Amino acid sequence: MTPVAESRIRVRYAETDQMGVVYYANYLVWMEVGRGDLCRACGFEYRDMEREDGILLAVAEANCRYISAARFDDEVTVRTAIGAAHRRAVTFTYQMYAGGRRLAEGYTKHLILNRNFERAQLPQKYWPMFGLG
Amino acid sequence: MTPVAESRIRVRYAETDQMGVVYYANYLVWMEVGRGDLCRACGFEYRDMEREDGILLAVAEANCRYISAARFDDEVTVRTAIGAAHRRAVTFTYQMYAGGRRLAEGYTKHLILNRNFERAQLPQKYWPMFGLG
Amino acid sequence: MTPVAESRIRVRYAETDQMGVVYYANYLVWMEVGRGDLCRACGFEYRDMEREDGILLAVAEANCRYISAARFDDEVTVRTAIGAAHRRAVTFTYQMYAGGRRLAEGYTKHLILNRNFERAQLPQKYWPMFGLG
Amino acid sequence: MTPVAESRIRVRYAETDQMGVVYYANYLVWMEVGRGDLCRACGFEYRDMEREDGILLAVAEANCRYISAARFDDEVTVRTAIGAAHRRAVTFTYQMYAGGRRLAEGYTKHLILNRNFERAQLPQKYWPMFGLG
Repeated sequence: MTPVAESRIRVRYAETDQMGVVYYANYLVWMEVGRGDLCRACGFEYRDMEREDGILLAVAEANCRYISAARFDDEVTVRTAIGAAHRRAVTFTYQMYAGGRRLAEGYTKHLILNRNFERAQLPQKYWPMFGLG
Repeated sequence: MTPVAESRIRVRYAETDQMGVVYYANYLVWMEVGRGDLCRACGFEYRDMEREDGILLAVAEANCRYISAARFDDEVTVRTAIGAAHRRAVTFTYQMYAGGRRLAEGYTKHLILNRNFERAQLPQKYWPMFGLG
Repeated sequence: MTPVAESRIRVRYAETDQMGVVYYANYLVWMEVGRGDLCRACGFEYRDMEREDGILLAVAEANCRYISAARFDDEVTVRTAIGAAHRRAVTFTYQMYAGGRRLAEGYTKHLILNRNFERAQLPQKYWPMFGLG
Repeated sequence: MTPVAESRIRVRYAETDQMGVVYYANYLVWMEVGRGDLCRACGFEYRDMEREDGILLAVAEANCRYISAARFDDEVTVRTAIGAAHRRAVTFTYQMYAGGRRLAEGYTKHLILNRNFERAQLPQKYWPMFGLG
């Protein structure tokens, strides 16, 4: 059973552009909100992982496919799941909706780094949370 | 001969995050700066295309692979080119550097839309600029 | 009795900078979230005011005093109130907290504009909501 | 003779909002670009001040008055000067133009902090740059 988190985000005026819709880079910000909520659903805070264990999830790749436009004041749902998890890398997947309408979907691939930005292993206590044996 | 544009961007404090490096969504903003400069290199202003011809290049997909981190005050070069162009869709590719160091590379795919957000054709006057016959 | 709205905002990673705290311009984004919630508390949606009545609240001045730093994942409360309201201009005031700690306070002054960016009057139906006779 | 810096900034699509003009919080980002350029005009890099001397210029207050709207692709000039300087606090002032048109003006007040976010003195080597005796 893989953990899934649903985040609710109300579109901010700041996130729109002169096309009248949400500027495309902001979907990556929403993905980050989704990752934080998925960590919480897995039983830990991303903040503590970074602060206490000195572990960073550095983004190695981000991808987003835009299906229909989000607009100011829309209530967006970000559905975040773990696509693949290894001891040294994790992939998250995202599906975004507003009302019944699909907005976008995408993924981010992350490398586990230590405070010196060197490749590292996910500490063992996090393994069960990411479905690792 | 395909047009290429080189944009220079100095990293802003606002673009960093608490990891001490540039937040990942901002690379997509830099891609947009690169697209604008590529339009200029092709002999037109993106602003005029949108304002006078009512043509939007709506993003359908964005992809970025992060290779090494950009930091505050770095002078970033974005090298933008046209990856593929059709009358109804265009792909741009990007390579980003700081000093001799590769930062990231990626692409964006765009659909040609009219002011009503409907699929449209690129007006004929732009065809030569995008290498279309 | 003047209307007051309380907004809850969880600090996003994107909102931090390399100092490890929230970048100062983002407090103005939170003020905008507060204004939207105050409109709702007053019984209307800012979105509808703009879309249906063609009325814009253009910012004429913004001020923020920073008292203590907000950090990633903090739950911020923005307390928004109307400082002064006239038929052609409105001032909002803001107080921001996290836990019991005061983060910042400020105000924004807005002019009522029509779709052509000309000075206009607030439509009469909004007067009671802003305490205007 | 007080130092003044002029920064040139081309408005990014990302900086606009659905009103078709630049979102108001982004002027504070441009102020930060101006501060960086003023430091360079004074003979040092803000980055080095933070990194080598462990000195932060934490924002205590920001103010912006908006006079006319900036739009996508406008070339904005930010004219930054030192409004007042003490050993423990500095105020910067800003005037922004596009073409001959005044866009905005404002100021930011900063406290000198050390790496532990405690009040500190500006190191003596910076005094001449800020006109301090």
